[in-house]
Amino acid sequence: MVKFLVLWKTPADPVAFERHYRDVYIPLVRQLPGLRRYTIGHHPTAIRGEPYYWIAELEWDSMDALQKAFQSQEGQAISQDFANDARNAEVRSMVYEVEMVY
Amino acid sequence: MVKFLVLWKTPADPVAFERHYRDVYIPLVRQLPGLRRYTIGHHPTAIRGEPYYWIAELEWDSMDALQKAFQSQEGQAISQDFANDARNAEVRSMVYEVEMVY
Repeated sequence: MVKFLVLWKTPADPVAFERHYRDVYIPLVRQLPGLRRYTIGHHPTAIRGEPYYWIAELEWDSMDALQKAFQSQEGQAISQDFANDARNAEVRSMVYEVEMVY
Repeated sequence: MVKFLVLWKTPADPVAFERHYRDVYIPLVRQLPGLRRYTIGHHPTAIRGEPYYWIAELEWDSMDALQKAFQSQEGQAISQDFANDARNAEVRSMVYEVEMVY
């Protein structure tokens, strides 16, 4: 299993961010081919250090399936929207194999 | 479902970090009461911004169950080891409710 993790800092306009996320991203992401699991977390409680504001996790069966998803028409639409969206200035994202420990 | 997310920057000594993580933390974390799922990710590929080096995710059914786990003897042992471990200087951790989107 592979995961695509996206971490957002608190946006300048949290209301606009959340509206765009729910109205535009979620419908696009749900259409990505091969997507197995998609969760979001918001307004976390910090345990150590500064918390992120919004955390999205997308899972696929393999790196190959993830790459195909982002090469698809739906994946290209997401990348384009993301690139055009000034609300995403403060974001980190990364991809990795998931090791199930328990 | 609630998640405890822990993000590590690249440690000064990655080999010592990973040895300690696998030999000390994993056996402790697996004993936490009520733990439902525990995954780790390492050496991610950056998509945007600087990637973290090591990503641990622990899941419980509820915030109450998570709090009980960290108040347990096993939870206290983890907190103590964590506090004493200089390898954890560069870490962020946070707790949040998980919203299942897909």
